[in-house]
Amino acid sequence: MAHALRIARRGLGNTWPNPAVGCVLVRQGRVVGRGWTQPGGRPHAERMALDAAGGAARGATAYVTLEPCAHHGRTPPCADALVAAGVGRVVSALTDPDPRVAGRGHARLRAAGIEVAEGICAAEAAAMQQGFLSRVTRGRPMVTLKLAGSFDGRIATAAGESRWITGDAARRHVHLLRLMHDAVMVGAGTARADRPALNVRGFGPVRQPVRVVIRQGAIPDLPPEDADHGPLLVLPGPLPKAMAMLAERGLTRVLCEGGGQLAGALLAQGLVDQLACYTAGLVLGAAGRPAIGDLGVQALGDAPRFRLVESRPIGGDLFHRWLRSP
Amino acid sequence: MAHALRIARRGLGNTWPNPAVGCVLVRQGRVVGRGWTQPGGRPHAERMALDAAGGAARGATAYVTLEPCAHHGRTPPCADALVAAGVGRVVSALTDPDPRVAGRGHARLRAAGIEVAEGICAAEAAAMQQGFLSRVTRGRPMVTLKLAGSFDGRIATAAGESRWITGDAARRHVHLLRLMHDAVMVGAGTARADRPALNVRGFGPVRQPVRVVIRQGAIPDLPPEDADHGPLLVLPGPLPKAMAMLAERGLTRVLCEGGGQLAGALLAQGLVDQLACYTAGLVLGAAGRPAIGDLGVQALGDAPRFRLVESRPIGGDLFHRWLRSP
Repeated sequence: MAHALRIARRGLGNTWPNPAVGCVLVRQGRVVGRGWTQPGGRPHAERMALDAAGGAARGATAYVTLEPCAHHGRTPPCADALVAAGVGRVVSALTDPDPRVAGRGHARLRAAGIEVAEGICAAEAAAMQQGFLSRVTRGRPMVTLKLAGSFDGRIATAAGESRWITGDAARRHVHLLRLMHDAVMVGAGTARADRPALNVRGFGPVRQPVRVVIRQGAIPDLPPEDADHGPLLVLPGPLPKAMAMLAERGLTRVLCEGGGQLAGALLAQGLVDQLACYTAGLVLGAAGRPAIGDLGVQALGDAPRFRLVESRPIGGDLFHRWLRSP
Repeated sequence: MAHALRIARRGLGNTWPNPAVGCVLVRQGRVVGRGWTQPGGRPHAERMALDAAGGAARGATAYVTLEPCAHHGRTPPCADALVAAGVGRVVSALTDPDPRVAGRGHARLRAAGIEVAEGICAAEAAAMQQGFLSRVTRGRPMVTLKLAGSFDGRIATAAGESRWITGDAARRHVHLLRLMHDAVMVGAGTARADRPALNVRGFGPVRQPVRVVIRQGAIPDLPPEDADHGPLLVLPGPLPKAMAMLAERGLTRVLCEGGGQLAGALLAQGLVDQLACYTAGLVLGAAGRPAIGDLGVQALGDAPRFRLVESRPIGGDLFHRWLRSP
């Protein structure tokens, strides 16, 4: 399952509106096939793994990071494909919360006489598929807020200079972060001030993330959609409505890259699930521009809280990742 | 030498005006004696190690983290003691910059026919003895600035609530930090607002650090010096003068615990050598109180820069340590 989770990760940012799933087929202790959900969500991971295994799938154990689908969408149900291939056993991490599946995949496998183990590495799989689960169960995408600033939490000097606070390695890492999200979002002020490209550079030809600008006032002309720039969506507030609209379009993972006002509003409204922070070794002082606007927090008990899940140096900067505390 | 450096560390905060030195005596591959500078700076590390080894010191190799002293201070010269004990070889990390020593210790050993290797693990030893080296060569102590705040760099809510942003484990770690510094310093505003104890708690009976308040306006009555509170010094600005006064009193390592105005002034004047940051997983927003006041930085090129040397979780918080970039 660890292997299946690792390969599932390759699809992050690339499979919406579908989840990024991994599937590994093991027979007699050997991997005979593996697959992950392909760009755009099709083919599914199980189909890829079965095709790779061919006849070797017969009697194999299939490790899947999400319940195989049971409904006829744009592809035939994976549960049926596993049955047809003669798989002997299925080990699955999560029940798919999509009401079209929701246990029916597992049931169909069992009805065909296949042994099914559920809930294996469920927490890890849920973390991986947080975006998809959020879209299906909460009607909004998972939101990652990126913060890159000085160690005193500033993103520009008092005079507005901000290029570059973090180093090359951290900035390259941000492109990886974009690649693993379905959409990149900024506020209108940032769009006007920076005219950001909001695309993935340095990873060869990739499926570019959707660009989202939350409207407040005029939006500048940003580059049209092309091979280097994803679709552009300009959405009005309020934020919960904008998030619902993104989920309706199938987006599961959204990376917010500022500015301070949008970041503050998302945090204040409980709409941030993950923080990706890059802290540079320089100090800009209280007159510098804050990364996060006013939240209206008076008492510490009212402050949004996050728990640390990762911290490590990237180049000369410190990268730290936090998940929203329940 | 790694062993000698490790035991030298035990003296940090405890040996001023002397450096925290470690000494390990090795004969035929076995440690026959070891010692570190004792509280108040005496006995020296070499004396402790020689006493521990007794006759076994004859023919041994002495690993010392600093050149053995050659002058008659309150203790007889360690170089003479090593000669008298019949040590066969001395491996030393650093030349003592104190003009009373400055190579004379090594010279005296060589004059007695003892082989001396210098500069072994010099960088590690210099980092360990940064406070002492700073006092002797720059006429000011090494300054560590402690920052403990939200991940957006705030140390209190807009309403002033600050207890507690960081968790228990981080707050205990701050006491360890105090223990390893000679003095703990705050600005007058923080002294008035918080009436901080500025002492080490939770480590049993220890030599308490000197308390330093940088005067600006009235200072409140703080507890008198006793077993639980170190001497209290109230110093006027300007800061470089105050730092020189601390060095004259023999202080080598000073921990600044705020507030934002003092932190900003120290940074702006290039007086911060090390940053010890505790970042909590909560966000307070731009209306919260900043950890560092205004620095007058307009261009990024003018911002003080630091390099990351350590980062790890402490409890639910992130601890990260940075050293001033040259």
